[in-house]
Amino acid sequence: MQLNEQILARLEQLEKRVALYDLIASYGPAVDSGSAEAAGTLWGEEGTYDYGDHTLVGRSAVEAMVKGPQHQSLIADGAAHLLSFPMVQIDGDGATVTCYSQVWIHKDKRFVAWRVSANRWELSWDGAAWQVESRQTYPLNGDEKARALLAQAVAGIGQR
Amino acid sequence: MQLNEQILARLEQLEKRVALYDLIASYGPAVDSGSAEAAGTLWGEEGTYDYGDHTLVGRSAVEAMVKGPQHQSLIADGAAHLLSFPMVQIDGDGATVTCYSQVWIHKDKRFVAWRVSANRWELSWDGAAWQVESRQTYPLNGDEKARALLAQAVAGIGQR
Amino acid sequence: MQLNEQILARLEQLEKRVALYDLIASYGPAVDSGSAEAAGTLWGEEGTYDYGDHTLVGRSAVEAMVKGPQHQSLIADGAAHLLSFPMVQIDGDGATVTCYSQVWIHKDKRFVAWRVSANRWELSWDGAAWQVESRQTYPLNGDEKARALLAQAVAGIGQR
Repeated sequence: MQLNEQILARLEQLEKRVALYDLIASYGPAVDSGSAEAAGTLWGEEGTYDYGDHTLVGRSAVEAMVKGPQHQSLIADGAAHLLSFPMVQIDGDGATVTCYSQVWIHKDKRFVAWRVSANRWELSWDGAAWQVESRQTYPLNGDEKARALLAQAVAGIGQR
Repeated sequence: MQLNEQILARLEQLEKRVALYDLIASYGPAVDSGSAEAAGTLWGEEGTYDYGDHTLVGRSAVEAMVKGPQHQSLIADGAAHLLSFPMVQIDGDGATVTCYSQVWIHKDKRFVAWRVSANRWELSWDGAAWQVESRQTYPLNGDEKARALLAQAVAGIGQR
Repeated sequence: MQLNEQILARLEQLEKRVALYDLIASYGPAVDSGSAEAAGTLWGEEGTYDYGDHTLVGRSAVEAMVKGPQHQSLIADGAAHLLSFPMVQIDGDGATVTCYSQVWIHKDKRFVAWRVSANRWELSWDGAAWQVESRQTYPLNGDEKARALLAQAVAGIGQR
C-alpha cells in the first residue's frame, strides 16, 4: 500500500513533466499559426510575459499581442518561434523551465534568425494542467540580464 | 490488482512517449549520415513524406531519396537536419507529433539555414515500435499550408 | 511482489532518462552564463571533451575552458550554445546521447550561427546522477568524422 502510493507519486511526477513538455512545445505552433486563444490559454489569468523592453500582463494581453498588427505581419511573411529542449525543475505544484528561443523570419526569400534569447518560465499546477505565471525572454546580445537568467537555472548544480 | 493494471497502463503510456521521442530524434542522424536503411525503417511500408512540392510514397522511396544524388551531395558538403522539441499527442495506437525542422547546409565556409519548416507526423504503434504513416513538412515562408498545419496541433487548446 | 519490482525498474528507467534530459539541457545555461563550476560538474573527474581540433581532459579542464579568455569574450558579446532534442540510448548504468549543437554569437547587431555540429555524449550513472565520461562534437562542414558519429547512433535501426 505504502509502496503503491510511492509508485503513484513517482508516476504523477513523470506525467506532470511530460505535460510541461507539451505546453512548452505548443507555444510555437500557437503563435506561428496566429491561434491567439490557444496561445493565451497557456498563461494564467494574471500571468506575465516580459520580453526585455516590455511586459505583457494577463492572459488577455498575450492574446491581444498575437492578434496585433506586428505579430500578424510577421506570420503572414512566415515566422517560426522555436524553443530549445527545456531544462525542467519541478517543486511540488510549481515549476521552472529554462530554455532558449529562436525567432526566424522569412525575408528576401531567405530565412533569417531575428532573435536568439534566453528564457525562464515559471508555472503553477492547478491539479489538471500547468499555467504560465511568468515568462522572461532576453536576447543573448551581451546584455547582462540574459546571462543572469541562465545562471539562475544552474545555481544549484555546482554545489552537489 | 485493478490498481496494478492502471499503473501498468500509465507506465506504458510514458514508455510509448519516450519511444516516440527517440524515433523523432533519430531522423536527423539517419539522413545526415546517409544511413538510408535506418531512415527508411522509421516509415511504415506505405508511409508517406510530403515536403510541399513533392510526396514520397513508401519506405523504399524514403530510402531512395537518401541514396539519391541531391541528398548525397548535400551531406558531402555537410548538412544538419534538426528537429525542434516535439509536441506529442498520443491516442491509443496512433500519435501525432508537431515540431519545426531546420535544414542547415555548409557553404563558402559558413553555416546557412536553408529551410525552416513546420512539421506534422502521424504514426502508428505496432505493439513494439512506432512507424511513420505520414510526415508533412512545409516551409514557413508565408505559405498558408504551414500555418494551417500548426493551427491543427493547437486546435483543441483554446477550448479547455 | 515480482510485479512491483518490475514496475519499480521501469519507473527508474524513465527517471534516469529525464535526469539525462535535464543534464543535457543544463549545459547551455551553464556555459553561456559563465557558470564554470556548474559546467565542470556535469563531467566526471576524468571525463573528456573532444571538439575536433582539441580534447579537454578532466572536469577541471572544462571549468578552465569556461573561465578562459576566449569563452569569456564570446559570452560578453552574447553567445548561445543550443543542443537539439537528444536521441538517448540507456544500457544499464551507461548511456549514449546523440544530438546536434548550434553555437550562436552576436556580431554587428546580428545573430550568427558560428557552428553547427554533431554530438555524441557517453555517460555513466553513479547511483544518483549522470556524469559525462566523454563528449565528442564535430562540425557538420563535410568532415567525415561528423557523419561517422551520426551513423554510429543509428547503426542498430536498420536491422530491427
